[in-house]
Amino acid sequence: MPENRYWRLDDHPHGNDFAAAFSLQHEPIPEPGPGQVLIQNSWLSMDAGTRMWITPRTDGYQPPLPLGSKMVGLCLGHVVASRDPNFTEGDLVRCFGQWADYALVDPALSGLVKVDPSVADIREHFGTLGLNALTAWAGLVDVAHVKPEENVLVSAAAGATGSLACQIARNLGCTVIGIAGGPEKCGYLTEELGVARAIDYKHDDVEKALSEVPGGINAYFDNVGGPMLDAALPNMAHYGRIAICGLVATYDSDTPTPGPARFDQILMRRLTITGFFLPDFLDRAANYLPTLREWLDSGKLVMRFDETRGLENTLSAYAGMLTGRNIGKVIVDVRG
Amino acid sequence: MPENRYWRLDDHPHGNDFAAAFSLQHEPIPEPGPGQVLIQNSWLSMDAGTRMWITPRTDGYQPPLPLGSKMVGLCLGHVVASRDPNFTEGDLVRCFGQWADYALVDPALSGLVKVDPSVADIREHFGTLGLNALTAWAGLVDVAHVKPEENVLVSAAAGATGSLACQIARNLGCTVIGIAGGPEKCGYLTEELGVARAIDYKHDDVEKALSEVPGGINAYFDNVGGPMLDAALPNMAHYGRIAICGLVATYDSDTPTPGPARFDQILMRRLTITGFFLPDFLDRAANYLPTLREWLDSGKLVMRFDETRGLENTLSAYAGMLTGRNIGKVIVDVRG
Repeated sequence: MPENRYWRLDDHPHGNDFAAAFSLQHEPIPEPGPGQVLIQNSWLSMDAGTRMWITPRTDGYQPPLPLGSKMVGLCLGHVVASRDPNFTEGDLVRCFGQWADYALVDPALSGLVKVDPSVADIREHFGTLGLNALTAWAGLVDVAHVKPEENVLVSAAAGATGSLACQIARNLGCTVIGIAGGPEKCGYLTEELGVARAIDYKHDDVEKALSEVPGGINAYFDNVGGPMLDAALPNMAHYGRIAICGLVATYDSDTPTPGPARFDQILMRRLTITGFFLPDFLDRAANYLPTLREWLDSGKLVMRFDETRGLENTLSAYAGMLTGRNIGKVIVDVRG
Repeated sequence: MPENRYWRLDDHPHGNDFAAAFSLQHEPIPEPGPGQVLIQNSWLSMDAGTRMWITPRTDGYQPPLPLGSKMVGLCLGHVVASRDPNFTEGDLVRCFGQWADYALVDPALSGLVKVDPSVADIREHFGTLGLNALTAWAGLVDVAHVKPEENVLVSAAAGATGSLACQIARNLGCTVIGIAGGPEKCGYLTEELGVARAIDYKHDDVEKALSEVPGGINAYFDNVGGPMLDAALPNMAHYGRIAICGLVATYDSDTPTPGPARFDQILMRRLTITGFFLPDFLDRAANYLPTLREWLDSGKLVMRFDETRGLENTLSAYAGMLTGRNIGKVIVDVRG
């Protein structure tokens, strides 16, 4: 008889020691209650934002996941049982489900959506058509108000959101500067993503490299916070905009880390810094999708996948994503 | 024969030791060159922003004043000689002139404007009708987008800009929370400025007091940066806006001071922080003035002046303003 395996959060992890914090549990396949939908997961998405939910901090953008819970994460799979009339067995769907063979969700609470099964590689629903892409679009266009010809800086530029932000900014006519760690990632940026200049933060003096950008940085799509933000601040153009998408540098800390030392540049350069969160933009995200799809089909938007096989190997995929081991989107193939 | 006295910047001051950095010099009254205007100053305005110009820092919002220069500051006085056809002897004017008996200015470079001599107390051109008022309006309305019923926090609330920000926000229908140092200032806020709640940062736990504001802070008009900003960040309402008007806490430092420890709350609460600078808003400031004048005339906008007599006493007035000794607007009466 088939069973469901799931990752249980037993303790708040220290740093990236996830083996001590999670255990793989077994249970009978759950039955959907009234209004619920059961999904057989095909892929799990590994996302840095989830790192915040598994700390005890109550000042994050959502409450911490209670210890003993099934780990929550973004899932792509097929409906196998539905007690919601909007979803039918066989639908290809994406939602915030569980790190499990089967995700049991309330559609409204989990952001359950049907996605187009005709896409050549359905993993693109975690890639160029996924939430990272919508996040990149919202941050660049709705938050940072990028305009053609502007200099746009992207940190963690070889990651899932970063690599999409680079390409979207480029497709919108901006000059893109990407920051990533190591020559392989930097080569990826310039050779495959059309980034004008790649800065290797493990090797280059980032602040100096940014000071050489003619006219300064008009918009910064920041995924990491910390030293990269400090390097950017004094090199922003006047009236520059900074969209704070993530502060990965701080997520595994139990206590807040200091803000940027060059905070005063916000005043001196009359900058605007805005923290944003994709769910606030989901109602207009439907407007972004046709263009993303067009770019995907015409080769103007690509995603590299860093795929791990097996639900049992999820934790190393997760740690790899958080430590920047990957290029592109980290996913776990949980198909049997 | 009359002469001109002026304060010369001899050295970059350490902290608030201005006596070692400035000297009072004497010279013949200057003659305006082509296009220039000579003004006999009546009052000088003491403004925290000028503290930045007299450091050696080149990353401020304008280049440092060269050593050996006449100290620059905001002046209110009458034209005594003009080689600009737009200004005539006897005009009451305001400009960025010099800390001197006579200011010699290029109209375009100094922001020279005629002001209305019919105002009952012409010092109001440094007060309710002055640049502090325009700054307060721009920060609240154009930058922080305050709306009626919102909770608006103001730091340095008993100072010139702060006390105007409190009253303008109140007049616009907001609930105002003011932070100031000491019971006298706090009494001024609640008794004379209509502030709903005054927080004494020298006595109260500011962060705790702010945590008790129902619904959180929707907009923060920040004059100081530093610990007050840190106390505010975790108590902002989601989508709150912070207008950074000044960072007085950092102006006398030769090196940048760390940013707010609670910087992560910008992301968690989806805040927007914007540094702003009045000159960027001067073209629309003409639209603010009629309302400010109406409020002044109807008693809905008041300014308390902290006046020092004599150009020779300017330095103590300046130090007092920077250390928050004053309530309201610090000015120096330089009339003979």
